[in-house]
Amino acid sequence: MVFSVGEVPGVLWTLGGAVGARPLILIGHGGGQHKKAPAVLHRARRFVTDLGAAVVCVDVPGHGDRPPHPEFNALAVHNQTRIDDGEDLAAVLTAFQATVAGQTVPEWRVVLDAVQTLDHVGAGPVGYWGVSLGCGLGVPFVAAEPRVRAAVLGLGSGLANADAAARITVPIEFLVQWHDERIPRDQSLALYDAFASPEKTLHANPGLHSDRLPDHELDSTVRFFARHLTS
Amino acid sequence: MVFSVGEVPGVLWTLGGAVGARPLILIGHGGGQHKKAPAVLHRARRFVTDLGAAVVCVDVPGHGDRPPHPEFNALAVHNQTRIDDGEDLAAVLTAFQATVAGQTVPEWRVVLDAVQTLDHVGAGPVGYWGVSLGCGLGVPFVAAEPRVRAAVLGLGSGLANADAAARITVPIEFLVQWHDERIPRDQSLALYDAFASPEKTLHANPGLHSDRLPDHELDSTVRFFARHLTS
Repeated sequence: MVFSVGEVPGVLWTLGGAVGARPLILIGHGGGQHKKAPAVLHRARRFVTDLGAAVVCVDVPGHGDRPPHPEFNALAVHNQTRIDDGEDLAAVLTAFQATVAGQTVPEWRVVLDAVQTLDHVGAGPVGYWGVSLGCGLGVPFVAAEPRVRAAVLGLGSGLANADAAARITVPIEFLVQWHDERIPRDQSLALYDAFASPEKTLHANPGLHSDRLPDHELDSTVRFFARHLTS
Repeated sequence: MVFSVGEVPGVLWTLGGAVGARPLILIGHGGGQHKKAPAVLHRARRFVTDLGAAVVCVDVPGHGDRPPHPEFNALAVHNQTRIDDGEDLAAVLTAFQATVAGQTVPEWRVVLDAVQTLDHVGAGPVGYWGVSLGCGLGVPFVAAEPRVRAAVLGLGSGLANADAAARITVPIEFLVQWHDERIPRDQSLALYDAFASPEKTLHANPGLHSDRLPDHELDSTVRFFARHLTS
């Protein structure tokens, strides 16, 4: 079901004929992707089918059905110049994501409010899934939103988000691509280190930043959410 | 079923009434433990019940029902002196384990030969599970034994075992205790790095070397073996 909350276009998936409150999982899409990108659909389908969850994904500013965002665009162009001039890619990226999060954190909270008023979603436990941009925006979101009970994050750096991560105490499954060419390994491990969560598991697999995650990681994610959202 | 192969005492678990060939999982026990230690029984029960596997564990020289091993004992005493004198704990430990592996690798291979002659074990696929000492002895064993199709290892260092790890190509699930006070994190990550396996996943959790692993890790291990030994 496609919807808009204010200026935010989103999509909500539930099982056909679903009745009553259920877990809700918000997926944060990656950079350059959108609310119906294949990587989002792939996970949404599993969460709906295997967990009976409702799944929601919204377009990040400047992505999908949203108009270009002049301020973020200008910043992105400026950042590219900084990277071309030799500034650290991960540092520039994570600072940019922290800026965008200033807009997306309140947007996503309002979307949760709206979606949870639906009878077949309701005020059940909330989970969050997001890697790369979805991690950069997800860490401050999970830190700010007490409805989130468990989160899968990853392919992100502790550079800009360590303070927000230190306010997170819910269970975390944290994904690392071992040969990530965009996020230096020590910055990735530093973000895992920063979470205050007593239960936090790091899963690393060989591969570059944008390589497909192993299928068994999605299986693991489904079980992680099952443990924390459905029992 | 308790058994001996030569001078090696071991125990074999199978489902009551088991008939025919099945996966066989060898568990390598931890330092100071033995073939029936609680940590071994805990895992053996799950592997038998959930996977229908046969599980075998044997006492490492100087452990359990085996007599003291004068040579290894003398070496251990000498090593303690080196550690007291300020030598690196992990380096001394891993070098010691590599020495012990010179005896255990052939012992374990002969045990596999013997156990697989039993009708209710047979020549099915073999898995290996071992952390800490079980990793130090397990890496050279898995590298040497082509019957092993998948292995769970961890709480180990790449210092002494990187060459053997580089000969391993089967799927690996590698466990790290994030606050391990005995194995420096970089040496632990270096062992993960060293495996030549295309499929290798590192799972890190908060905790010290001997802290109990999270229950969800045993669930994950069972699914890992199910994927690689039973399908």
